[in-house]
Amino acid sequence: MYIILVYDIGEKRVGKMLKLCRQYLNWIQNSVFEGEITEVKLKELISRARKFMKEEDDSLIIFKSREQKWLEKEIIGQDKNDLDTFI
Amino acid sequence: MYIILVYDIGEKRVGKMLKLCRQYLNWIQNSVFEGEITEVKLKELISRARKFMKEEDDSLIIFKSREQKWLEKEIIGQDKNDLDTFI
Repeated sequence: MYIILVYDIGEKRVGKMLKLCRQYLNWIQNSVFEGEITEVKLKELISRARKFMKEEDDSLIIFKSREQKWLEKEIIGQDKNDLDTFI
Repeated sequence: MYIILVYDIGEKRVGKMLKLCRQYLNWIQNSVFEGEITEVKLKELISRARKFMKEEDDSLIIFKSREQKWLEKEIIGQDKNDLDTFI
């Protein structure tokens, strides 16, 4: 399955979340990731995130699409993901 | 069509972008919006955004799905959109 993951998380926990998501998905912008992932791996990601998330403040939203081709992506302005590969 | 819009934009222009997107879509988190929109209205949104975006710094990513039912949404933690309606 193909997912888009966006998080809004307290500053102190941003680094942890970034590191965690990078292990499973591709970073595309700010607090947004995308990628192919299995149901099992996604559950693992969520359960690892829950361990440090403060559920009363933080939020993690996942959009799931069975196939990537059903989602068309348009980028206006900087494609930050291009830069990412050079950093 | 149903879209997810995420932006990463210089602080000075965040207010403008937020205001603009709210006219077309539903705010769901931080710099993330979603909603049903026509092709024409989306073009209008993008052209209005381009007027104040700094294309060398800012980025706007749009994921388009022909139908909302093809995208399943899962929220972990705070559903900030719930709060939004009270503010």
